[in-house]
Amino acid sequence: MTLAATEHSSALPVVDKSHEDRRKYPHGVAFMDGQYLPMSEAKVSVLDWGFLHSDATYDTVHVWDGRFFRLDLHLDRFFRGVERLRMKLPYDRSEIETILSNCVALSGHKAAYVEVICTRGTSPTFSRDPRQSENRFIAFAVPFGSVANKEQLERGLHIAISDTVRIPPKSIDPTIKNYHWLDLVKGLFDAYDQGAETALILDTNGHIAEGPGFNVFLVKDKQLKTPAFSVLPGITRQTVFDLCDELGLSATAADVTCDELKGADEVFITSTAGGIMPVTRIDSTSIADGQVGSITRQLMDLYWKKHADPAWSTPVSYP
Amino acid sequence: MTLAATEHSSALPVVDKSHEDRRKYPHGVAFMDGQYLPMSEAKVSVLDWGFLHSDATYDTVHVWDGRFFRLDLHLDRFFRGVERLRMKLPYDRSEIETILSNCVALSGHKAAYVEVICTRGTSPTFSRDPRQSENRFIAFAVPFGSVANKEQLERGLHIAISDTVRIPPKSIDPTIKNYHWLDLVKGLFDAYDQGAETALILDTNGHIAEGPGFNVFLVKDKQLKTPAFSVLPGITRQTVFDLCDELGLSATAADVTCDELKGADEVFITSTAGGIMPVTRIDSTSIADGQVGSITRQLMDLYWKKHADPAWSTPVSYP
Repeated sequence: MTLAATEHSSALPVVDKSHEDRRKYPHGVAFMDGQYLPMSEAKVSVLDWGFLHSDATYDTVHVWDGRFFRLDLHLDRFFRGVERLRMKLPYDRSEIETILSNCVALSGHKAAYVEVICTRGTSPTFSRDPRQSENRFIAFAVPFGSVANKEQLERGLHIAISDTVRIPPKSIDPTIKNYHWLDLVKGLFDAYDQGAETALILDTNGHIAEGPGFNVFLVKDKQLKTPAFSVLPGITRQTVFDLCDELGLSATAADVTCDELKGADEVFITSTAGGIMPVTRIDSTSIADGQVGSITRQLMDLYWKKHADPAWSTPVSYP
Repeated sequence: MTLAATEHSSALPVVDKSHEDRRKYPHGVAFMDGQYLPMSEAKVSVLDWGFLHSDATYDTVHVWDGRFFRLDLHLDRFFRGVERLRMKLPYDRSEIETILSNCVALSGHKAAYVEVICTRGTSPTFSRDPRQSENRFIAFAVPFGSVANKEQLERGLHIAISDTVRIPPKSIDPTIKNYHWLDLVKGLFDAYDQGAETALILDTNGHIAEGPGFNVFLVKDKQLKTPAFSVLPGITRQTVFDLCDELGLSATAADVTCDELKGADEVFITSTAGGIMPVTRIDSTSIADGQVGSITRQLMDLYWKKHADPAWSTPVSYP
């Protein structure tokens, strides 16, 4: 049936039995309700509060060369978030580890982006009371993705600072990893409007907060600094602190002003989607000589080296 | 396959072709991708940015006694939100009106809760750039629901004030109706913990903002007042202003303190999900004599009367 047809007829259109989705989805495997499924089947009801109220928490871990990187830290954060939102998971930690490994192994990907999700779900009696909801667990593995592409990783990203304010901790606890991103999306459009490739947005005091899916670091006189307030405590951010310990570099979390960032010797961003990624331009300012800095390179090298280290990574059980 | 089975075997579980969802969904009809579908089929991909980034806007209108109430105002707001998020709809306004009428008529409901949604969607090339996404339009009609049940409408709701701060306008523009609700959900859990039935949360200055899905009004010395800052400009809130005009009552939007609200002669909340609903207790304070006030009753009566008025309502085209 077409819309024109319904307009010219008093008869109602037919209700189809099932949805025919012609969109393309990346190759990958999802887990829902005890089933492993292709990504095209991994869907949530529009009535799930995880969609209607963004009432959900999640985490993403990546697989590199067939090994999960710092899976424990990601699962720690996920379980904390689920508890703080007063949700319940139908699986324990070791079951979830098996599910994640299965999703990756079934996908065949050696480099994967792996997500675990818990949504508020829906109530069997259609109650609006979130305490009566049956929470929903979902996991999936898709190909590894990065905030920065290959060219950007080599020459450094160009970032614009948007005056959009990151949702403050008094509204949403940033330690609960969440999908409340409209502020970050607004920042991204602001950045595109200025010809930049991605964005940083501010905290309520006008200091630098974070960007869409990443934390930011500056290096000044060989000392590293990253915003402390109104940011997700990223696992890659934590990893930078750990790598600095190993390298004997000083790293602190504290307020970072826009001027401080632009006047830094080096700037980089951190995300599970791409790791440590250099930034060489902020608004119209080149960072130092506009080249990727030596401490950034040193950290990037060590970061990727750690992916083979059994203390930092866990093998996927491929068949 | 069971999880136990996978744990004890080195063989991988099977990937099923389709998801078997055993959850119950309310009776209703949805529209997606040119198809009318039962609610159990109305699902979005977990990769849709509308889910992953809550990058979506929506509106809800209700149908009462077979007539949409103030459909124009809801669609005006929806189209404004879509434009502000820089999304594009595949249908024009009259096509969307037809789709909504069809969803309701096909559902058979004479009293319905009708939602239109536009999500960022996904990119055919799996790009993270929101400009490259194909936006997704969804509509559905389910049975009418109310924030307050019958008993609560008669005796008045018991509300608790949570110190959670509503996401401020500098982060998310509240005039774009959005799914960023974790602050409201937190407020709701705080309220339940105090034995209340629903919640109000604060603005960044510590004044009253709004509750989960509703605005709030107070009446003092026959004058009405509702928070002006950090709130969704609700259609039912607008309707109260319009009804006050007709009744010769004064209504203003301005800062409302917690003490002012508790010291009011009458308090009520407004939502498409229930209309005008009385509040007779806030935290441990009874509002005035603890009975539903006369101006609240007068407004409730006129509100429901307007549902049959062709100037305020539009008939659904049932077959």
